[in-house]
Amino acid sequence: MSHNTFGHLFRVTTWGESHGTALGCVVDGCPPGIRFTQAEIQSELDKRRPGQSRFVTQRREPDEVKILSGFVMDEDGETMITTGTPVSMMIENVDQRSKDYGEIARQYRPGHADYTYDVKYGIRDHRGGGRSSARETAARVAAGALARKVVPGMVVRGALISMGVKEIDRSRWNWNFIDDPENPFFTPDPGSVQVFADYLDGIRKAGSSVGAVIEIVADGVPAGLGAPIYAKLDQDICSNLMSINAVKGVEIGNGFWAARITGEDNADEMRIGNDGKPVFLSNNAGGILGGISTGQAIVARFAVKPTSSILTPRQSIDVDGKDVEVRTKGRHDPCVGIRAVPIGEAMIACAIADHYLRHRGQTGRV
Amino acid sequence: MSHNTFGHLFRVTTWGESHGTALGCVVDGCPPGIRFTQAEIQSELDKRRPGQSRFVTQRREPDEVKILSGFVMDEDGETMITTGTPVSMMIENVDQRSKDYGEIARQYRPGHADYTYDVKYGIRDHRGGGRSSARETAARVAAGALARKVVPGMVVRGALISMGVKEIDRSRWNWNFIDDPENPFFTPDPGSVQVFADYLDGIRKAGSSVGAVIEIVADGVPAGLGAPIYAKLDQDICSNLMSINAVKGVEIGNGFWAARITGEDNADEMRIGNDGKPVFLSNNAGGILGGISTGQAIVARFAVKPTSSILTPRQSIDVDGKDVEVRTKGRHDPCVGIRAVPIGEAMIACAIADHYLRHRGQTGRV
Amino acid sequence: MSHNTFGHLFRVTTWGESHGTALGCVVDGCPPGIRFTQAEIQSELDKRRPGQSRFVTQRREPDEVKILSGFVMDEDGETMITTGTPVSMMIENVDQRSKDYGEIARQYRPGHADYTYDVKYGIRDHRGGGRSSARETAARVAAGALARKVVPGMVVRGALISMGVKEIDRSRWNWNFIDDPENPFFTPDPGSVQVFADYLDGIRKAGSSVGAVIEIVADGVPAGLGAPIYAKLDQDICSNLMSINAVKGVEIGNGFWAARITGEDNADEMRIGNDGKPVFLSNNAGGILGGISTGQAIVARFAVKPTSSILTPRQSIDVDGKDVEVRTKGRHDPCVGIRAVPIGEAMIACAIADHYLRHRGQTGRV
Amino acid sequence: MSHNTFGHLFRVTTWGESHGTALGCVVDGCPPGIRFTQAEIQSELDKRRPGQSRFVTQRREPDEVKILSGFVMDEDGETMITTGTPVSMMIENVDQRSKDYGEIARQYRPGHADYTYDVKYGIRDHRGGGRSSARETAARVAAGALARKVVPGMVVRGALISMGVKEIDRSRWNWNFIDDPENPFFTPDPGSVQVFADYLDGIRKAGSSVGAVIEIVADGVPAGLGAPIYAKLDQDICSNLMSINAVKGVEIGNGFWAARITGEDNADEMRIGNDGKPVFLSNNAGGILGGISTGQAIVARFAVKPTSSILTPRQSIDVDGKDVEVRTKGRHDPCVGIRAVPIGEAMIACAIADHYLRHRGQTGRV
Repeated sequence: MSHNTFGHLFRVTTWGESHGTALGCVVDGCPPGIRFTQAEIQSELDKRRPGQSRFVTQRREPDEVKILSGFVMDEDGETMITTGTPVSMMIENVDQRSKDYGEIARQYRPGHADYTYDVKYGIRDHRGGGRSSARETAARVAAGALARKVVPGMVVRGALISMGVKEIDRSRWNWNFIDDPENPFFTPDPGSVQVFADYLDGIRKAGSSVGAVIEIVADGVPAGLGAPIYAKLDQDICSNLMSINAVKGVEIGNGFWAARITGEDNADEMRIGNDGKPVFLSNNAGGILGGISTGQAIVARFAVKPTSSILTPRQSIDVDGKDVEVRTKGRHDPCVGIRAVPIGEAMIACAIADHYLRHRGQTGRV
Repeated sequence: MSHNTFGHLFRVTTWGESHGTALGCVVDGCPPGIRFTQAEIQSELDKRRPGQSRFVTQRREPDEVKILSGFVMDEDGETMITTGTPVSMMIENVDQRSKDYGEIARQYRPGHADYTYDVKYGIRDHRGGGRSSARETAARVAAGALARKVVPGMVVRGALISMGVKEIDRSRWNWNFIDDPENPFFTPDPGSVQVFADYLDGIRKAGSSVGAVIEIVADGVPAGLGAPIYAKLDQDICSNLMSINAVKGVEIGNGFWAARITGEDNADEMRIGNDGKPVFLSNNAGGILGGISTGQAIVARFAVKPTSSILTPRQSIDVDGKDVEVRTKGRHDPCVGIRAVPIGEAMIACAIADHYLRHRGQTGRV
Repeated sequence: MSHNTFGHLFRVTTWGESHGTALGCVVDGCPPGIRFTQAEIQSELDKRRPGQSRFVTQRREPDEVKILSGFVMDEDGETMITTGTPVSMMIENVDQRSKDYGEIARQYRPGHADYTYDVKYGIRDHRGGGRSSARETAARVAAGALARKVVPGMVVRGALISMGVKEIDRSRWNWNFIDDPENPFFTPDPGSVQVFADYLDGIRKAGSSVGAVIEIVADGVPAGLGAPIYAKLDQDICSNLMSINAVKGVEIGNGFWAARITGEDNADEMRIGNDGKPVFLSNNAGGILGGISTGQAIVARFAVKPTSSILTPRQSIDVDGKDVEVRTKGRHDPCVGIRAVPIGEAMIACAIADHYLRHRGQTGRV
Repeated sequence: MSHNTFGHLFRVTTWGESHGTALGCVVDGCPPGIRFTQAEIQSELDKRRPGQSRFVTQRREPDEVKILSGFVMDEDGETMITTGTPVSMMIENVDQRSKDYGEIARQYRPGHADYTYDVKYGIRDHRGGGRSSARETAARVAAGALARKVVPGMVVRGALISMGVKEIDRSRWNWNFIDDPENPFFTPDPGSVQVFADYLDGIRKAGSSVGAVIEIVADGVPAGLGAPIYAKLDQDICSNLMSINAVKGVEIGNGFWAARITGEDNADEMRIGNDGKPVFLSNNAGGILGGISTGQAIVARFAVKPTSSILTPRQSIDVDGKDVEVRTKGRHDPCVGIRAVPIGEAMIACAIADHYLRHRGQTGRV
């Protein structure tokens, strides 16, 4: 990626730190004539907002998005219509609780970017993670809300499928359960809620943290998006997911599992369906063959590492080169992966929207 | 990625198909004054050359690289010195065995890009996989050979760590064994050779194929390369790896495993070493924290799916929309992952070289 | 350029329309450790602010810049220090005088982008020029204020050298006069003020408008920036200048004049100076030879067309395809070129800052 | 531009030096299904080939283009059809006359990039101008030949309109005369041939050289290409032209002249034509309003400086920092601007093709 901009035709630039005045994004290259409301953008943002259950950070952020440019208001006074010029969106930081960052400013938290920041830049905004704070992801979600509207008929949904050593039962998968108010985990498996809750309560009480695996599924993506190599649709999806803070692995379709099985088991066989159209008999490929979408559902997964900010003391060093013991207090997510679900959705929506426009540009199709 | 170009300051553009006249790459942005020989580039290419054991395709390609621009010859008549202008390298295709592609031209091989090519472009070079042939990777390896020289002291090495259901024993890891003439698998574990050989013989005789997992380690990478988000070093490494044909998953450091363990187990603790410099007590992060290199070894893995071209018949359809049964004859790798090792090395070398120059550009450091 | 982003390492993205909530820019890739104050940015902005004399639009805009991210505040509470992350700057639109845009919304003003907007996008924000309003240039000036600080010792200054048929007398060139409060024209020639004033009063009274030519000079630019072709420093300077609204021509050094003179007259001869360093005996090349800076002053000029919004009636058509006569009322600059001076400075500063970082990245020099 | 690549969707990367083995280009992003022949590409190349009259360098280069990838051959064995993958084209250098470059290698020719190369890279291929040789432009012309086919109905033509102090008479403009075998100058004015011939003979005999101004006109360009600012069609045209070696100025439509006239004179008035479609009554804008094409002819001009390689002695310095007198012998064009005509055509064709695809990508129109 080129610095803090991603996408080639549908381009997103984000800016802002955890504890600055505001953060935001500029969505450039959006097709003209796309209709949306602030409420739609806001509702995506609300999904990743902290403070909604005891399992996520209690930092209170209204995360209210302001849309500053790139639209004309329809006569209803509510519907915005993109004009084709850059759409700038901003979210002000209101809960910048004043506290003593003295220790954090001087100690390198293990697993954090503190040390590498200092080596790279020689200067760092130590407040709350700076640029690589989870706060920044609000800008991605806002951009993704627009991206969803670029590809007609596309639906992008995500689910948490494992937390630490606990996994869902895929046979109970229910997309509708994701938005259930009784579901604080974005799990598609109603039976997993109590398991995850108990598990995470234990993790939290132990002053520990735990990672998660997220699965994103994009339905309604037309065949033909992507390229055989280099601008592969799966590659840009993986790059977008890997650009999220704390992500350590990504895979498409059956992913790493494909490396364990044989060619005949991995191949997705095809038949002509009753309507005369091609039908795939399986989807090991995750909807992408040779870098190009097949028309099946796009399936991607990513692994989020456990939050590094934990109460459990860890050995480290400080800026003066002395050995220290670090204990990170504050309002931290015991499983930052939970809130990563809408972020992953947004990043995949952006990748697909970009390839939709690129495909149309090169080939004139769709 | 922008079409068939990758990298931001160290930029590589590749071109060429399996059965065209030639293939090659243009390396743009290479620093001036880098000394190399054709033999060095060639020796990297020879590693991925087919036909070297019974476990890889018997297609014979000398893969002789020609270096066409971007250098002046030193007085020794052998050492080339980059001038800072584009280095163009070309490999001619000599073994374009004439054969009947009639069936392949009309049938969509399951797991191949045949179908998606036709949907996307409406036209396709059906000979040997076209652009997404393994042949194209020769261009990547040539570019990677130059990239290795951009970062002083960097050593990039790769190893096959599993093939289908068979894994190496990491306790026997021996880098020196990789280049052993008795080792046709790029495995670092001498004890695995016989296991892999027997396994792959069985796969081949069954008209089947199998995938593999490759691990790449880059030593000697200075701390400070990358960015907190978006231009993360790990992200660009993953994007580069995912751009390789047949790759379905990538991970950094302990990767997907990080999602299973706790924050205190995942954190790489630090101490001040005897020389007064920071020492990490583990490397779960794979040498990258917050998107920026730590100075530890960079560790990445990627999963290669089993070759789709298999003798075992599979159900599919043809271009006329009829159901067919496909059996792919020809000289195909039963485990294309074997030859992916030098390719993965090259792609990671390119990613790191690019970030080395970007870091120097932005900060003036290194 | 890639949409609304320019630069490769020092990257600027701008957003915002004439009559939206706000406009702004994101400066990405800025080196860390650059010290600046809001007052410095503001003082650049104030130069292009309207309403400062009777010769520019009377629209009143305080153009107060807010700096939203990418810095830490120094202990003095005033000096900001860049951290290497994106610097977001915003200017709110306060003087959005409500008026009847009925006619403008339906009539295509000759010389304006009204017609082409509608053809391209099928939708348009007709208020005040939309995206191609002179308002947008405030974002460029803010970015340029940072760019000036990237290259140590660089000074970028601009001057209006002709207005319509009136030209300055170059023998009276005085840089110090540019900022003189008695000089509403950015002219370096004190003797030209009365000439320009009388001329422009006549133009204004006639309900007409007139164009201008601006010259920008960058001193203190180190030799070696740019590339022989394609990433030529002069090319990126020209591209940046041509990206400004209403610019129709650009030239470097003696520019179009070079096409009229002989090779021996055009060549800038060299001698070794008393200090042993190379000295150029002239600067026809405008400080750039073969796309690369020579160490001499960089000199560029650009032509700004006359404002299209004039009181004099012009023939045109409307959105319904009917012939109409257009007369544009409102607060328009009779010579929009005057305020283009600080904008040209900013765009050249950005181009040079970008090449400074690129040169350092590729070669490790400077 | 990003190094030696230009264009966003229709992307061209060029490589190669004056005296290397070969030079060429990679055209990436070309739409699939474009039909062309090698003869068509070759005929464009032949236009800029040296050695065709006494007024251009006598270096003999067949400039035979080889097309290496990105196409399938039609059944006629002659027509190539693009597949959407990179089209690589190569031209081998055959006339690398061995000669003594001793002096040129050590002396900085005034007006040449010799000095700036050394400052930038610390190393240089001194043979024949290296990367900034006119040889390189063959690659641009080959790419342009493909670009011409991307926009249906587009015709791009160029003409030399002045040479040194001699100008054509525009009232005698005749496009058909350009290709007349009696016309060695690409002039559209039959009456100018003898004038230019006599003038240039004098220049040549005097050991001097002279510059030229070229005008390029693109007919058949649909309205709607470009963007209001930053990705302006005129801006990318100017950038492409300015990327050509020896170009010092560019303008669109009436260009610098627009700065001299009033708003009412500059505005291109509109009427509804008999067919109900908009008609412009003039074309001062050069076919581009607010950065977006109007549907009128695109008109651009560029100034080429006089060849720096002249027999007339000039003062300079050498690599050891000594004062020297330089006299450049060899086969040099007395007016390098003549052969710039097809190059300018190619660069504009590439710019328009790119914007055609970008417009289609963003808006789905055309």
